[in-house]
Amino acid sequence: MTTYTVADYLLDRLAESGVRHFFGVPGDFTLAFLDHVERHPLIGWVGCANELGAGYAADGYARLHGLGALSTTFGVGELSAISAVAGSYAEHVPVLHVVGAPTTAVQAAGRASHHSLGDGDFGHFARMTAEVTAAQEVLTATDATAQIDRLITEVRHRRLPGYLLIPADIGETPVDPPSEPLPSPDTVTDPAVLTRFRDAVAARLAVADSVAVLADILVARLDAEDHLHRVLESGVPHASLLWGRRVVDESASGYLGPYLGAASAPAVRAGIEDADVLVMAGVQFTDLTSGFFSQHIDAARTIEIRGEHARIGDDDFRPLAMRDALDAVADELAALPGRFAVDAGAPPVAPRPPAEAGEALSQSALWHEVAAFLRDGDTVLADQGTSFYGMAGERLPHGVVFGGQPLWAAIGFTLPAILGAALARPERRPVLLIGDGAAQLTSAELGTLVRHGVPAVIVVVDNGGYTVERVIHGLHEEYNDIATWDWTALLGAMDPRGTNVGVRVDTVGALSDALAAARRSEGLTLIQAVVPQDDVPPVLADLAAAAAAANRRS
Amino acid sequence: MTTYTVADYLLDRLAESGVRHFFGVPGDFTLAFLDHVERHPLIGWVGCANELGAGYAADGYARLHGLGALSTTFGVGELSAISAVAGSYAEHVPVLHVVGAPTTAVQAAGRASHHSLGDGDFGHFARMTAEVTAAQEVLTATDATAQIDRLITEVRHRRLPGYLLIPADIGETPVDPPSEPLPSPDTVTDPAVLTRFRDAVAARLAVADSVAVLADILVARLDAEDHLHRVLESGVPHASLLWGRRVVDESASGYLGPYLGAASAPAVRAGIEDADVLVMAGVQFTDLTSGFFSQHIDAARTIEIRGEHARIGDDDFRPLAMRDALDAVADELAALPGRFAVDAGAPPVAPRPPAEAGEALSQSALWHEVAAFLRDGDTVLADQGTSFYGMAGERLPHGVVFGGQPLWAAIGFTLPAILGAALARPERRPVLLIGDGAAQLTSAELGTLVRHGVPAVIVVVDNGGYTVERVIHGLHEEYNDIATWDWTALLGAMDPRGTNVGVRVDTVGALSDALAAARRSEGLTLIQAVVPQDDVPPVLADLAAAAAAANRRS
Repeated sequence: MTTYTVADYLLDRLAESGVRHFFGVPGDFTLAFLDHVERHPLIGWVGCANELGAGYAADGYARLHGLGALSTTFGVGELSAISAVAGSYAEHVPVLHVVGAPTTAVQAAGRASHHSLGDGDFGHFARMTAEVTAAQEVLTATDATAQIDRLITEVRHRRLPGYLLIPADIGETPVDPPSEPLPSPDTVTDPAVLTRFRDAVAARLAVADSVAVLADILVARLDAEDHLHRVLESGVPHASLLWGRRVVDESASGYLGPYLGAASAPAVRAGIEDADVLVMAGVQFTDLTSGFFSQHIDAARTIEIRGEHARIGDDDFRPLAMRDALDAVADELAALPGRFAVDAGAPPVAPRPPAEAGEALSQSALWHEVAAFLRDGDTVLADQGTSFYGMAGERLPHGVVFGGQPLWAAIGFTLPAILGAALARPERRPVLLIGDGAAQLTSAELGTLVRHGVPAVIVVVDNGGYTVERVIHGLHEEYNDIATWDWTALLGAMDPRGTNVGVRVDTVGALSDALAAARRSEGLTLIQAVVPQDDVPPVLADLAAAAAAANRRS
Repeated sequence: MTTYTVADYLLDRLAESGVRHFFGVPGDFTLAFLDHVERHPLIGWVGCANELGAGYAADGYARLHGLGALSTTFGVGELSAISAVAGSYAEHVPVLHVVGAPTTAVQAAGRASHHSLGDGDFGHFARMTAEVTAAQEVLTATDATAQIDRLITEVRHRRLPGYLLIPADIGETPVDPPSEPLPSPDTVTDPAVLTRFRDAVAARLAVADSVAVLADILVARLDAEDHLHRVLESGVPHASLLWGRRVVDESASGYLGPYLGAASAPAVRAGIEDADVLVMAGVQFTDLTSGFFSQHIDAARTIEIRGEHARIGDDDFRPLAMRDALDAVADELAALPGRFAVDAGAPPVAPRPPAEAGEALSQSALWHEVAAFLRDGDTVLADQGTSFYGMAGERLPHGVVFGGQPLWAAIGFTLPAILGAALARPERRPVLLIGDGAAQLTSAELGTLVRHGVPAVIVVVDNGGYTVERVIHGLHEEYNDIATWDWTALLGAMDPRGTNVGVRVDTVGALSDALAAARRSEGLTLIQAVVPQDDVPPVLADLAAAAAAANRRS
């Protein structure tokens, strides 16, 4: 009979928290731990090409699944993934980073172990990671299970990454399995505070002529989307920031369009900024999602709902969970049926005539065709460049989960992230939109997508460089050029059995055909979409100009 | 007329320090700085596929050229490269990491800027990097040139990486050019200490029957190889650790073979450990280069020469530069001509009969053929796995610069590093030896090698996984498997013009032919060398067993 150890305990706690896939790269201080992963009945190992890719994949998994898990080895492994972990922190994504370390004896001897700096100090990397994680534990033989419980509880509750360092010997220490489940992460509301909040909302709505809702990504992170949807069922006009597109249904009649401060369409801006009462749910303004902080929001007219508190004018309500606050708003709106409902009517993005099939592909035609291709239930990740901002001009169909990374804004993030997202929700068709410069950063995980049979539809925008950088500065500078790759051949190199399809397109008709074929295919499809180098989506051009101006101001 | 700015000043100081190539990935807070790089008369920009690759390339450049330079953007960029910087620290490689940051105004406002954590704290990443760099500066408008001088002086002197954060506005601040050169980094010796050291060496040698020399990597880092060679010209028997192979001439008659503690060949072990006087030059024992600290060195019989001091028995000599100490030893040996010389005779590696051309390729045959292929002046980087340890059994010809990364031991390091090494010393033929699992980590830089026309000879060991991990633990576990790639097709995908050659070989004869063709070619050659999955070089098998044992001890 196999002994039950600390490693098993950790895996059981992760499984209890919903984790079914563990992403990572093996290393000599993690190998014994990985034996436990491979033998766990509920959790599967997903080996990635490199640690940054594994970190992005774990993040993509957590975005769709609530909690991600990442395994790397000491020093070389963990630091190669640390930018991904920092991105999870910035974007409120709970990922547990589990790092295998030299044994306590090796550390105590202070020797020049490989994967260390050779100076006998084994604490460097834990101190570094403390800057970009919400909680950290270095497991000890006497307290390991309590440490694991504390850490996972904190990560789940705060929706931020955590760091768990396991010396190789500690993982193999025998312990008892968990005797009872971890506490639920979401029991913060004080009933008296909720009553006071509900009364305040009712009072505001009673005298309002217009109400609008602005929602953002924290609604998704706090698993409060169903509660937001109850609010929006009232027909109230609403918008989301680009970060939070997934929390609203862009096909709904009350949907105004994306809100980006001064860069918004005029009707969206007026609808949000001029409402008598604005309900803000889980909104965090960042430079790139607010047109460089050009929003005009009157706090006196705002009901602001955050993770664990709310604010109406100068009144603060805490502790109050977002879900409960949204339910209170929904109830009060339901008590005034139809009063604030609008039909936003025509989509804010003007419909375009169907393109001529032989027309050369442009950014504009590309994103329009992609939007037309999307179906209910697709997961769409758009990389932080022409893909994310190009899609800003397209209205998404019902039920699409759309994501990007506008705060951390690591180009290349989405390619590994779509692996995690696809494994998290295999019932959804994964769609990846990414530029060629970005895709080069993380291209090796294309092989991991193939290895795991992920039926992704991948559009690589082929325009020979970092377009998002070009439009900020250095339009024709050499440093914004990249190596020229044949992306369909790259897929072939990573798919020696040839079960997937790569196709290069440079006309609207060829793109349309390729997308239609991809929808019918059960394998992965990579579409290398050639567009002119200087062609830039309008939203990105505006933001880039603002970014360039910010860099010039001292 | 263009204004001379802080950016120009930095570049002039780097050029003065010998830097001719700047590696990196552009990002929005570095773009204006990169304008200055592109316009600099002596320094060229080398854009890489991702930041980790750029960091490894800058490290490889510094290993051959004395100082490397790396440019990334704030947060996402710098953290993606930080594992490479940590590796430079562990392995004593001076690389200046130059990071572009948001302007001082944006930072002072504490806003949620992209590439930050969104919490208003712009100091996280500088604090993280302080753990893995020898010196750091965050440039200010009033002190920028003095900060640059301090930092570069420190990096050059300590042969360790440094960190320079440049807010976008500060780089564009007008300053005066340098008026005088930076001080030389190597003027530490006290003449009286040198005299005392020389007398002590003479006294030891006078009564010794045997003398041996053990040299290691710090001799190269401190640019003292010529001084070591003066010592070895005496014909004294000598060895190096595997880390420091490049500092000795393995074709010399006094060369005994590599010293790895208990894992050494018996004649090498006896020659080093039993000498009456052992001169140790720049030696740092690590677990993987000492057979897990199994060396038996009697300090009482040792003359130990470090960077800035020496020790003979209990006597300490400081300040004393390595070069001066080595010259003193060389002088004293020259005064006793022939007294300690040996002819180590037959190479310690038994010559093997030429393989049958049709024989299936094995690890043993692979490394033997590669060693036979090498020529005077080649730069050889061997990745930390079967490549590095497979080559441990082969004697290198005269004039080869051989390198690996046995302390930090990041698999995949050498693929980008060969780019830097090749640009640093274009007169040397670059040879890269790497396993398939390792190469997947950093494969994207294959495109950068092609883009820059580097005529590398690349051997990718195709055995379907992480062999170095397999032999430590999990020989047939799935986590040690990798995605299957066609490496010759991968080269094709990254070389659309088809100017380079990829070939797959699985027999000794085919390998031999491919290597011969590579020697004649002016382009890059990638050889995908198929060997059995469980075939392991003997040195690696021994070390892996010791590593596994260390992981089991608590």
